[in-house]
Amino acid sequence: MISKAQISFIKSLHLKKYRREHGLFVVEGLKSITDFLLSGYVVDAIYYTGNLAPNLGKLSNKLQLININSSELARISTLNTPQGELAIVKIPRNTPLTNESLKGSFSLILDYVQDPGNMGTIIRTADWFGFKRIICSPDSVEIYNPKVVQASMGSLSRIEVHYADLAPMIKASGLPVFGAMLRGQSIYETKFPEEGLLILGNEGSGISQEISMLITTPITIPRFGSAESLNVAVSASIICSEIRRNS
Amino acid sequence: MISKAQISFIKSLHLKKYRREHGLFVVEGLKSITDFLLSGYVVDAIYYTGNLAPNLGKLSNKLQLININSSELARISTLNTPQGELAIVKIPRNTPLTNESLKGSFSLILDYVQDPGNMGTIIRTADWFGFKRIICSPDSVEIYNPKVVQASMGSLSRIEVHYADLAPMIKASGLPVFGAMLRGQSIYETKFPEEGLLILGNEGSGISQEISMLITTPITIPRFGSAESLNVAVSASIICSEIRRNS
Repeated sequence: MISKAQISFIKSLHLKKYRREHGLFVVEGLKSITDFLLSGYVVDAIYYTGNLAPNLGKLSNKLQLININSSELARISTLNTPQGELAIVKIPRNTPLTNESLKGSFSLILDYVQDPGNMGTIIRTADWFGFKRIICSPDSVEIYNPKVVQASMGSLSRIEVHYADLAPMIKASGLPVFGAMLRGQSIYETKFPEEGLLILGNEGSGISQEISMLITTPITIPRFGSAESLNVAVSASIICSEIRRNS
Repeated sequence: MISKAQISFIKSLHLKKYRREHGLFVVEGLKSITDFLLSGYVVDAIYYTGNLAPNLGKLSNKLQLININSSELARISTLNTPQGELAIVKIPRNTPLTNESLKGSFSLILDYVQDPGNMGTIIRTADWFGFKRIICSPDSVEIYNPKVVQASMGSLSRIEVHYADLAPMIKASGLPVFGAMLRGQSIYETKFPEEGLLILGNEGSGISQEISMLITTPITIPRFGSAESLNVAVSASIICSEIRRNS
């Protein structure tokens, strides 16, 4: 059972404004919810239909477990086809981004990535290839958007995502700065160092001019056919693979 | 100006059933419409707001050009943010898929890829890397779905897409069959030949058992982190890049 007030509260979390106000977001599906619990996120409540997976309640003792029917789930879900479990999760306090924390590894930098599906897919790919950190321009899509959470398939629980004013952060880092451009050095001929920044730009307009100026090595994925460009999550993934292939 | 009957006719093309019945589909945006015209697709009509790009009408002389206002466009568009031009395009007759046509190059095989965004992104990536042909299982998402057309960014006009019963086609081809699996030979250690088939599976369940049995070389994208899997369009793209990198 779920009250009308709870339904409208959860539905309000579909919107960024109320996620910010309450410091909460929605995660759906057993696998993703388990990933957030295991990663130390604070899960306030799980609404579920049918039987709850027996281990889920054991992962936290502060957890409210609320059995609801499927028409109630349909009302609070962000999905067209709800998955049977919906969790209310606390937005964690952002760990501060220090210059020191950037050393020794590669970080992904997203300059105004707008599409939530792309953002979620990039988070999932970063997690696959063992990148720990993504830094987004403040105008990039918010990571607690339900479509980002969904596309990240639980990986959002394991990746550190920061929002920061990119130009001063890049300048202060002192790291080699690779940028995915339509013209640059072939990724197949690029020797990637152990630490650095990889910048990817907006779906339509690419990397902004201000940030382009800070790139030390413009790189490109060679084209063999006729498409004008690649999807940004695809570009990110191909370059992440290249960074790792010789590591 | 556009009549009520035209509006409901165009809106019917948002649905697969009516696309099949009428043999027509919708393409939106100047760049994509131009790509279809240049690729020899028959465009019946272009509905546009404001001024039409001057070259567009010259690309075909059978074309109806209909100026409408933006609220009319909003009613017939498949997009939340309509782009200013919407074309009605004829679904071409499928060129027959012969065994001979598979020789000498790589073809992508999609076994039950369901998500239209993934399908469109794979078509766009195939076009970038110069793959000419995609063969889909009959239960894969339909390529004239507006979300597929949109995500393909015009590349659908240049790629040959077939629907076929995969097992007999693969068996008859006599080509090396690579399949993207969670366990297989590292793509970084795989020498791809000049001709072959690359199979990618469903978003949730991967390649079906029947088709798995026909794979001669299971390949995998090495994992360096914790994500359970990669998005299918991402996997396709990384492997397409690997096939091309040494070519």
